[in-house]
Amino acid sequence: MVEAEAINVDLEIIVQGAQGRSKPELRLWLRMLSTTKLISQEIRRRLRAEFGATLPQFDLMAQLYREKDGLRLGELSKRTMVTNGNVTGLVERLEADGYVQRVTPDGDRRVTVAKLTEAGMTLFAAMATAHEGWLQDMMADVDPRMVSALWSEIGTVKTSANNHLSGAAFE
Amino acid sequence: MVEAEAINVDLEIIVQGAQGRSKPELRLWLRMLSTTKLISQEIRRRLRAEFGATLPQFDLMAQLYREKDGLRLGELSKRTMVTNGNVTGLVERLEADGYVQRVTPDGDRRVTVAKLTEAGMTLFAAMATAHEGWLQDMMADVDPRMVSALWSEIGTVKTSANNHLSGAAFE
Repeated sequence: MVEAEAINVDLEIIVQGAQGRSKPELRLWLRMLSTTKLISQEIRRRLRAEFGATLPQFDLMAQLYREKDGLRLGELSKRTMVTNGNVTGLVERLEADGYVQRVTPDGDRRVTVAKLTEAGMTLFAAMATAHEGWLQDMMADVDPRMVSALWSEIGTVKTSANNHLSGAAFE
Repeated sequence: MVEAEAINVDLEIIVQGAQGRSKPELRLWLRMLSTTKLISQEIRRRLRAEFGATLPQFDLMAQLYREKDGLRLGELSKRTMVTNGNVTGLVERLEADGYVQRVTPDGDRRVTVAKLTEAGMTLFAAMATAHEGWLQDMMADVDPRMVSALWSEIGTVKTSANNHLSGAAFE
C-alpha cells in the first residue's frame, strides 16, 4: 500500500520534472492520469482476488449485459473500454467458462452474436455491485459535494478536449 | 471528431446503464476514465502525426530525460507510465534510431544503463514542449481557476484511493 502510493506520487513528479516548472494544464493532466491508473490497478486487483476475473473480461461482460440480444464481435470490440484485449480470445474463454454463448439470430444466418448466458448475467450483476462498492470505498474520504462538483468539472474538461481534437479519424 | 465524441459519451452511458441508477462515485469514475482515454488518444494521435512517435516511446524518453546518468532497464520498466510496452524492444528501437544509447558505467561492468543521446535530448525537449501545448489546447475552454481547483480536488480523490487500497503488493 505504501509502496503503491510512493510509486504513483513518483510518476507525477518524474514527468513534471522533465519540463522544470510545468503549466497548470500539464500538472492537472498528470494528476488525472496517475489517479486513473491508481484506481484502475486497484480494480484489477480486486476483480482478480474476488472473482478471478480480468478487467477486459469485466468490461466485455458489461457491454453484453447492457445488450440482451447480444452484440457482433466487431461491435463489441468498438465498445470495449479496454482496447488492448483480443475480443475473440476473450469471448472464447468466457464461452468455455459458461458465461457467454455465441448464437445466430433468426433471419440472418451469416451473422453471429455473443450474448451472456444466465450464469454470465448472474456473475456480472455480482461483479457490478462489488465494483460500485470498491469505488465508494476508494472515494470514502471525498466529500459527496466534491464528488458531484468533480463530475461536473471533469465534464467541462471532456467537452473542451472534444472541442479541440486535431480532427483525425477516430481509431 | 464528432465520431470520437459520440463514442466517448457512449462509453459512459453504456457502463452506467448496466447498473440502472449509478452511485455518484461510479459516475465520477466513469467520467474520469472516459476523459482520460479521450485525452490519451489525442496525445497518441498528435505524437504520431507530428513526431512519428508512440506514447510508450515518449514515456520512456521522459524517464531518461530526467535521469541524465541513465537508468537500468529494470528501473526504467518500473517507472514507465505505460506498462504494456516491452521496454527492451523500445530501447532497441530508439537505439537504432540514434536517440538512446546503452552504456556500462565506470566501476561496474556487469551493469548496463540506457541513456538519451544528444539527438534524443533534443527530440524529447521538442516533444515535451509540444505535449504541454496540446494539453493547453485541449483545456482551452476550462477556466484557469477550475484547472487549479481540479488539480487540488483530484488530489483529494487520489489520497482517498491510496488510503483505501486493498493492501495487496503493488505490481
